[in-house]
Amino acid sequence: MLGSGFIGRFYADSIQGYRSKDKIVSIYSRRQESANKFAEDYKVGHVTINMEESIAHPDVDVVCISLPNHLHEEAVMLCCKHKKAVITTKPLGRNAEEAKRMLLAVEEAGIFNGYLEDLVYTPKFIKAFESVKNGALGRILWAKSRETHPGPHSDWFWNIELAGGGCILDLGCHCVEITRSYIGKDIRPVEVMCWADTQVKPIDAEDHAIGLVKYENGAIAQFEVSWTFRGGLDLRDEVMGTEGTIWINNFLRTGFEMFTTGKGDNYVAEKAESNSGWLFPVGDELNELGYNHMFMDMFNAIEEGRAPKETFYDGYVVNAVLDAAYKSAKSKAWEPVKLEIWRGQENVQKPSNLVEYDKDHYLVKEELTHYGAKKLILKHKTTGTISEQVLN
Amino acid sequence: MLGSGFIGRFYADSIQGYRSKDKIVSIYSRRQESANKFAEDYKVGHVTINMEESIAHPDVDVVCISLPNHLHEEAVMLCCKHKKAVITTKPLGRNAEEAKRMLLAVEEAGIFNGYLEDLVYTPKFIKAFESVKNGALGRILWAKSRETHPGPHSDWFWNIELAGGGCILDLGCHCVEITRSYIGKDIRPVEVMCWADTQVKPIDAEDHAIGLVKYENGAIAQFEVSWTFRGGLDLRDEVMGTEGTIWINNFLRTGFEMFTTGKGDNYVAEKAESNSGWLFPVGDELNELGYNHMFMDMFNAIEEGRAPKETFYDGYVVNAVLDAAYKSAKSKAWEPVKLEIWRGQENVQKPSNLVEYDKDHYLVKEELTHYGAKKLILKHKTTGTISEQVLN
Amino acid sequence: MLGSGFIGRFYADSIQGYRSKDKIVSIYSRRQESANKFAEDYKVGHVTINMEESIAHPDVDVVCISLPNHLHEEAVMLCCKHKKAVITTKPLGRNAEEAKRMLLAVEEAGIFNGYLEDLVYTPKFIKAFESVKNGALGRILWAKSRETHPGPHSDWFWNIELAGGGCILDLGCHCVEITRSYIGKDIRPVEVMCWADTQVKPIDAEDHAIGLVKYENGAIAQFEVSWTFRGGLDLRDEVMGTEGTIWINNFLRTGFEMFTTGKGDNYVAEKAESNSGWLFPVGDELNELGYNHMFMDMFNAIEEGRAPKETFYDGYVVNAVLDAAYKSAKSKAWEPVKLEIWRGQENVQKPSNLVEYDKDHYLVKEELTHYGAKKLILKHKTTGTISEQVLN
Amino acid sequence: MLGSGFIGRFYADSIQGYRSKDKIVSIYSRRQESANKFAEDYKVGHVTINMEESIAHPDVDVVCISLPNHLHEEAVMLCCKHKKAVITTKPLGRNAEEAKRMLLAVEEAGIFNGYLEDLVYTPKFIKAFESVKNGALGRILWAKSRETHPGPHSDWFWNIELAGGGCILDLGCHCVEITRSYIGKDIRPVEVMCWADTQVKPIDAEDHAIGLVKYENGAIAQFEVSWTFRGGLDLRDEVMGTEGTIWINNFLRTGFEMFTTGKGDNYVAEKAESNSGWLFPVGDELNELGYNHMFMDMFNAIEEGRAPKETFYDGYVVNAVLDAAYKSAKSKAWEPVKLEIWRGQENVQKPSNLVEYDKDHYLVKEELTHYGAKKLILKHKTTGTISEQVLN
Repeated sequence: MLGSGFIGRFYADSIQGYRSKDKIVSIYSRRQESANKFAEDYKVGHVTINMEESIAHPDVDVVCISLPNHLHEEAVMLCCKHKKAVITTKPLGRNAEEAKRMLLAVEEAGIFNGYLEDLVYTPKFIKAFESVKNGALGRILWAKSRETHPGPHSDWFWNIELAGGGCILDLGCHCVEITRSYIGKDIRPVEVMCWADTQVKPIDAEDHAIGLVKYENGAIAQFEVSWTFRGGLDLRDEVMGTEGTIWINNFLRTGFEMFTTGKGDNYVAEKAESNSGWLFPVGDELNELGYNHMFMDMFNAIEEGRAPKETFYDGYVVNAVLDAAYKSAKSKAWEPVKLEIWRGQENVQKPSNLVEYDKDHYLVKEELTHYGAKKLILKHKTTGTISEQVLN
Repeated sequence: MLGSGFIGRFYADSIQGYRSKDKIVSIYSRRQESANKFAEDYKVGHVTINMEESIAHPDVDVVCISLPNHLHEEAVMLCCKHKKAVITTKPLGRNAEEAKRMLLAVEEAGIFNGYLEDLVYTPKFIKAFESVKNGALGRILWAKSRETHPGPHSDWFWNIELAGGGCILDLGCHCVEITRSYIGKDIRPVEVMCWADTQVKPIDAEDHAIGLVKYENGAIAQFEVSWTFRGGLDLRDEVMGTEGTIWINNFLRTGFEMFTTGKGDNYVAEKAESNSGWLFPVGDELNELGYNHMFMDMFNAIEEGRAPKETFYDGYVVNAVLDAAYKSAKSKAWEPVKLEIWRGQENVQKPSNLVEYDKDHYLVKEELTHYGAKKLILKHKTTGTISEQVLN
Repeated sequence: MLGSGFIGRFYADSIQGYRSKDKIVSIYSRRQESANKFAEDYKVGHVTINMEESIAHPDVDVVCISLPNHLHEEAVMLCCKHKKAVITTKPLGRNAEEAKRMLLAVEEAGIFNGYLEDLVYTPKFIKAFESVKNGALGRILWAKSRETHPGPHSDWFWNIELAGGGCILDLGCHCVEITRSYIGKDIRPVEVMCWADTQVKPIDAEDHAIGLVKYENGAIAQFEVSWTFRGGLDLRDEVMGTEGTIWINNFLRTGFEMFTTGKGDNYVAEKAESNSGWLFPVGDELNELGYNHMFMDMFNAIEEGRAPKETFYDGYVVNAVLDAAYKSAKSKAWEPVKLEIWRGQENVQKPSNLVEYDKDHYLVKEELTHYGAKKLILKHKTTGTISEQVLN
Repeated sequence: MLGSGFIGRFYADSIQGYRSKDKIVSIYSRRQESANKFAEDYKVGHVTINMEESIAHPDVDVVCISLPNHLHEEAVMLCCKHKKAVITTKPLGRNAEEAKRMLLAVEEAGIFNGYLEDLVYTPKFIKAFESVKNGALGRILWAKSRETHPGPHSDWFWNIELAGGGCILDLGCHCVEITRSYIGKDIRPVEVMCWADTQVKPIDAEDHAIGLVKYENGAIAQFEVSWTFRGGLDLRDEVMGTEGTIWINNFLRTGFEMFTTGKGDNYVAEKAESNSGWLFPVGDELNELGYNHMFMDMFNAIEEGRAPKETFYDGYVVNAVLDAAYKSAKSKAWEPVKLEIWRGQENVQKPSNLVEYDKDHYLVKEELTHYGAKKLILKHKTTGTISEQVLN
């Protein structure tokens, strides 16, 4: 395990708690004190402040990178050198250039590579994704993901140099991969429009952003990210198709509601803002946030010699979309997504909107009126005239 | 009452049901049959297919325009001619040019003019607005309004010439006025970015659009509108400020949930898609959608000789914002909002992000950690260095 | 208006705000100061601390009793004497004996009598009730009403002599009338089982109770009432029938959710416990709690010379059910409901449970299995043997 | 694994999916065909229709009983004979007599015994339970559990002889253990009041019941169970204490909402009634229903040589409470819970309701009024007089 901070601990809780056979054998941290504390808490035998020593340790089979963004590339390159399987926290790189270098390096080294995008492993996502694949929503038109909270925990996030960006990079990477999954990971993201601003925090990076991503098949993705939200961790996704819609609330409204005057005084939930009043805890955060299912996929993939659901390639695509978002936030126009490596479908066409009604008309809409009758809105195929027809 | 269609009937139900002293005395409809039916249902004495005759009728004090968009201007001009108070359904015009002409005309004629934007009169909006004004959310950063459903009821909506546009004009006008109200009606909307597409319906106008509106004080508004949503009438608003957030669901989740196998067979709700399974009716649609409070404000304003909350001027501002949205959807860039008439504040500055912590630092964030300690993220005033401090 | 306390003010807000033609002309209060304040706030011309003077005032057409329970009978008798229409807050009496005397008196005097049970006038109740009547839920099996909060506002409620009881009388009267309405007001309530205790408050009356009411047609009603609930005003109803279910939340979850750090400092909602954290305001309390629809029915009924939906007779039935509840709480057994006056159906039979499947079997259940097949559970008509059948 | 039906498959999915080291080595079923299918699906080596052969198989360390209720005792006795650890599905016995025999037998045999009450292992329950233990709700006053659905899957459930009862035994066993856990498993359940009826199904057992269980410390538990609910699987719990309340929805409202016109056609959720309209799937049923956490506790307990959270003793207590419920449903009075074996606290007193305000008064209530002032309701210590005091 590289990194002993907030996310490293979340990962460790999941890794050692779930499959019962995976064990952290070495911990690297930049600070000795922090490494020691982690080793004690998780009963880790090897402790070091030398990253390469941890990676090269003979008992280490898989390296899990839970480091600040600016250290990902160095760690990945060392994994390549020592031929160790590597899984890394999100985002893969600070930009697509870094991500591409990492992707090419792990593929050349022939090592297992996993991208730890937990939010496409949440139980709700997995179930929703199945429904989408089964056609329950018809053709997907729009997918939106929102992740906002009152700001990250560690200092480096707030430093634009180390982090590579603000909430777009920190949170938008989740949203892009979630929405891309619903629309189809083999459909090319074409261009991005993004608004970003620093509305509240005294920092250089953006603390609030909204973006749109257009896909080649005409579908549109949307992300809403912020470090200025008050009220906890707001994680909501929506997908809309021609035959239905899905609304997912991963955190603040999961069927668990508690009011307390505040006599109890314990940890309630990640990024909760209070210990009294109406609270909305999550039963099992590790599970609801996808950590368990994610590590199970990663370790099972290693054992079975297959790629996991999320690889460095996915991390690279996400970085490329976010690069376009940053560019658009400055240029104030739609910016193309530059994907030098693309492994999905090419030249996908937007499907036709025309639904045949009879030989002369297309069907615009069919409905039950306020007063009980069935009404049709039709469009004449040649003249284009819109007409209404009420059936009884 | 000019117009006997879907919205005319909604208005009539509210007008005659609520204050108990207002009475529809004349109905004009383009079709005699429809006018007769309306007159019979609402016990209206005067029935005509001549618009001016209805407006000029001596018993008519107030003219309520519930006509398709392309007929608003003609009706308004006749009200000016006959000096009758006029209230008109949304949007005011098909574009800002039309809206401006109507605005100038009613002001020159000196007649009462009301803009029937019901969704800033819903009980939830009114209460939320008070909280916002009281400062419960702090400084407003973002306001979003979503209105989507499976498409409008009448044929003329689907004709881009008569309607003036698609779902942006039909639904976006609500969203713009709702979000503008939260941000401050005296704050100038500066520019608009909009994505729009015709994804599903065989029509010329857009059936799905997402837009962002930037205000002079740095706040951002968002609208999501569609005629392709499946699941009913989705009316949700969100407002986010430095001190809090509000989520409003006006229709599909209001604390009324019903499962039925479908033996009952009646009207459930506006734009509901089914009569069986889990349904989410609204107790009192007229009230929840703001019609009652809106007409009460209009009639009280007339009696008290004051302007109502929503006037033609508001309708004009909304049209100007939507014009910019249409332009942006084509140009694929942010477009300025052209407001030749502006009656709000000028040269509003975006507030500072700097929160003093001590003489050397600004406060970036203060939080309770996962493990109970209090942590500060600080920024040095001169060097800009970000640092972490844990207090016990 | 008799009474200037909490409920008197709620009533006044509704009466003068809604129909725009009803006016409070006289206010009686036991305390001069309180009467004066009320008169000032609601612009009432006649102020008195002599109850009969207010009732007898020539401008008074309708007397609205908003007094503590122990004063209802006296006020009603004076209305009979002066032949004034009377509407009274809930409960009608402190027990069925008092209620019966009032019922007989108003009927003998031939005066209009209305029972102000607002919760069968809420928009949600009205809509749900229509669905039930239309058969959307099939045969009603169970109806439950829950009303709990942290305790009433005025001192007399806590005095068992003046109030006549604790939360059963204060809140149970709502629950009984709500559930009785769903099951059928013409179906006789047969017997009651009730648990009651004083769990928290240092008082003589009960502060928490749960009761079951059996109806002649086999349906069961349930009430849950408490003055010890923490979290606000919990008003939830459920109805369950052979074809469906309805869940209503009247107050704490109505599609309006707000998080605030607490900078705003105003009244949020009736019996809310806090001004910060997650709050759940109600858009328009007067409307959501049924006051507007209730007074409209009362005044329209008076004008139309008909009985309102809720009369003293209903108040009497409710008191009789609550008397049985109190008796059961002591005897620890089911107690019969003593209804000396009964105006509904007699000798209603419980319907049969037998659903014909084929000539030899009754159908017990039909379902889609976990693995996709259709499964039937059947019961042999003569042998009673249960068998399973899987269809494809 | 004994039993290859619905619940056996749920268990198998959890056991083999979760800890990654537990393996089903033998399957017994009453029907060869069913045993074979199970063995194939879960890759089980040993297949038999002889129960003792499966239990005695040398590779079997733990016997998991997933059989109809009437076969539990026989299976448990064989486990005692062969000294195999045994875990059994709920309820333990068809009545307390059976349960007691099983409890005494496993204890005499000295074998590990676990009671598979999954609903006290759901992530939400575990988190809620921690909050209760931490005092977030203060003293617990009331705990309610509701489990209703349209009826069980297998034929034997509907046969009162094999099942031992109807929905009280099938579903009430969950509710009793959930509510007992919140109130305190060391607090004696004293007496039970229960209503039960056969309202819809053509069977001998009850298909709907409501019960109250009084505990020695004055807390009250409530269960609502039915096989006649329409709308899916309704699993809701509530706990109310002097300082707060918890509402849990385990199934129908968990933050996952889907509307579909029905083009997708797959399994949505346990006991869902439809594949179209608004649906409320659960992300990961095995986890949400507690199976994973339950088996982890069971297997960890075996490895660590400790008792699991739920043992046969708990199953016995539950049966004793349900016996009293059945008795009360017939006697129509409160019935004592007969616990010949009791291992909790004795002679617990109900706590005092008196809260000191000053030397002369107890505090009844403190509140913020509608109009902003702070109001106290006090009770005089000696006279008992209730008075109001308004503070500014």
